[in-house]
Amino acid sequence: MDKKEPLQRLLDYLDEDMTLCNRVIMDRMQSSVELVSQLAAHLIVAGGKRLRPLLTLASARLCGYEYSPDDVMPRHVRLATCIEFLHTATLLHDDVVDESLLRRGAESANVVFGNAASVLGGDFLFSRAFQIMTEDGSLEVMRIISQASATIAEGELLQMTIQNDLSTSIVRYYEVIYGKTAALFAASCRVGAIVAERSLKEEEALEAYGLNLGMAFQLVDDALDYSANQEELGKTVGDDFREGKITYPILIAYQQADAEEKKFWERVIEACDQNEDDLKHALFLIHKHQALEATLQEAMNFANKACDAIRFFPEGELHSLFEDIARYTVNRHF
Amino acid sequence: MDKKEPLQRLLDYLDEDMTLCNRVIMDRMQSSVELVSQLAAHLIVAGGKRLRPLLTLASARLCGYEYSPDDVMPRHVRLATCIEFLHTATLLHDDVVDESLLRRGAESANVVFGNAASVLGGDFLFSRAFQIMTEDGSLEVMRIISQASATIAEGELLQMTIQNDLSTSIVRYYEVIYGKTAALFAASCRVGAIVAERSLKEEEALEAYGLNLGMAFQLVDDALDYSANQEELGKTVGDDFREGKITYPILIAYQQADAEEKKFWERVIEACDQNEDDLKHALFLIHKHQALEATLQEAMNFANKACDAIRFFPEGELHSLFEDIARYTVNRHF
Repeated sequence: MDKKEPLQRLLDYLDEDMTLCNRVIMDRMQSSVELVSQLAAHLIVAGGKRLRPLLTLASARLCGYEYSPDDVMPRHVRLATCIEFLHTATLLHDDVVDESLLRRGAESANVVFGNAASVLGGDFLFSRAFQIMTEDGSLEVMRIISQASATIAEGELLQMTIQNDLSTSIVRYYEVIYGKTAALFAASCRVGAIVAERSLKEEEALEAYGLNLGMAFQLVDDALDYSANQEELGKTVGDDFREGKITYPILIAYQQADAEEKKFWERVIEACDQNEDDLKHALFLIHKHQALEATLQEAMNFANKACDAIRFFPEGELHSLFEDIARYTVNRHF
Repeated sequence: MDKKEPLQRLLDYLDEDMTLCNRVIMDRMQSSVELVSQLAAHLIVAGGKRLRPLLTLASARLCGYEYSPDDVMPRHVRLATCIEFLHTATLLHDDVVDESLLRRGAESANVVFGNAASVLGGDFLFSRAFQIMTEDGSLEVMRIISQASATIAEGELLQMTIQNDLSTSIVRYYEVIYGKTAALFAASCRVGAIVAERSLKEEEALEAYGLNLGMAFQLVDDALDYSANQEELGKTVGDDFREGKITYPILIAYQQADAEEKKFWERVIEACDQNEDDLKHALFLIHKHQALEATLQEAMNFANKACDAIRFFPEGELHSLFEDIARYTVNRHF
């Protein structure tokens, strides 16, 4: 097996498509208003993993999508750009919502440019994404992406509703992470399938792949907030804890807790009354009840479902990469 | 002439359309996430003037649009709803951006629900607007509205760029108010014309009407911030002044200022170093140089251009109402 990480191998496999996509991203975020370009550049040029647009490109290819070398803007690249803009818009807004200080290892945009510019910069990218979709002209794509976009906002608002509430059910937590993360993963994959103009079966299979991958991805993200090393993670460790955010590891640790431990969680999460040593004690309890292991096990279940959903696609290098990405998502450390 | 204000007469004229539109607005802002519905309700149910959706409905009618009584969701109503959602989304975000305390005479949503919920609630309404446009299915409408939406964000960001900068030109100020206000007025009117399926001439005429009306509207808004009575205005008087916002009255007063007055403006607007009595002195200088009169004169010029743009439409009650609305915009006191 290749020693490179699956994400890098997928990037290599789709090098031409991704290079073109990066060019379109840079091109379409330009604005006559300089602050707009600066803001977009801060997040987009600095880059991230570009996982979502990569899923769009890969899904189109898995469905056999081809384009003429003369085509400077093939549909899968155009829509991958929309997905990245929409995702970046939500990141800009999330940083305002969460009052984050770090994003992808750098100061987050709200720190550099202020909340106002982050809100409006997000609105601009959001609008630009819909402008590009309009150029593409597929109502089906627009229906899927606008639906995903509404679901993201609902998921984030639902997350606010359950904040600090230890009586939150696992089902409710899954609703939240479906909204905040998995819905866009699902849409990213599905629009890739749509441009390839294959049957509904392929579309729905890739949507299911994306959805389950997204669920796994968010579960791992929630575990990393209690396990990762700050430099690798590129964001502040313990953020979720300090906010009293309800995530899988917390729900498990609380469900397993004895009376005294329950009191601890109620003070630090429900009342958000935290001392300096509380994060350390929270980590101790999480390890004691193997809450991170349970979280990663759930993530692995979703990753397996993702692989199952696309099992009927013919074998091949790209198909294997889809499977490797799913498993790798569970084993990543950032 | 009827003693009622033109806006009320237009509402009466379009009573049936507007009643239907209000019903669709209430219906489509619902969400399974309760906080979403609460947020939307706070701004939408409390209502505002609903000027923008009214312009969509009126423009469609001026172009002779008819619909069957069996149609529970005629296109002009559907698109008027999109316009209202988009507008409400920008209001929610503006309140976060401006850190406002009052909106339409009530506590603004960011005060009641917090910044996070305002940002996400705006995102939800924005997404819902695009979902509804997708149902409508006109790519031309989507192109116009997504373009307007990008322009709004650019206008607001441009406004941030010129904040506190007294060397801002009038042209630049016009770019800002075109973006933050006139672009959506223009789009509101144009989509009304589009559903009526008339010629490009009608579409462009109504777009020009909306654009000029929007410019007039914002100029008056900027004048009111230095003249209105707080209760009538429904927002805090002097907000623009305290933020060091560059508006037409300030630019005129600064251009006419002597050396000592220039120093005053530079301290309070550029350095934003303000004492308790500064607003009073600013008002004195604005009156001394007749800056509000100059602002309202400019507004009247735009209102006249709005009327000129639609002159070729046949005479009739609705056509007269369009003209009355334009003039009334300049004479309003809220």
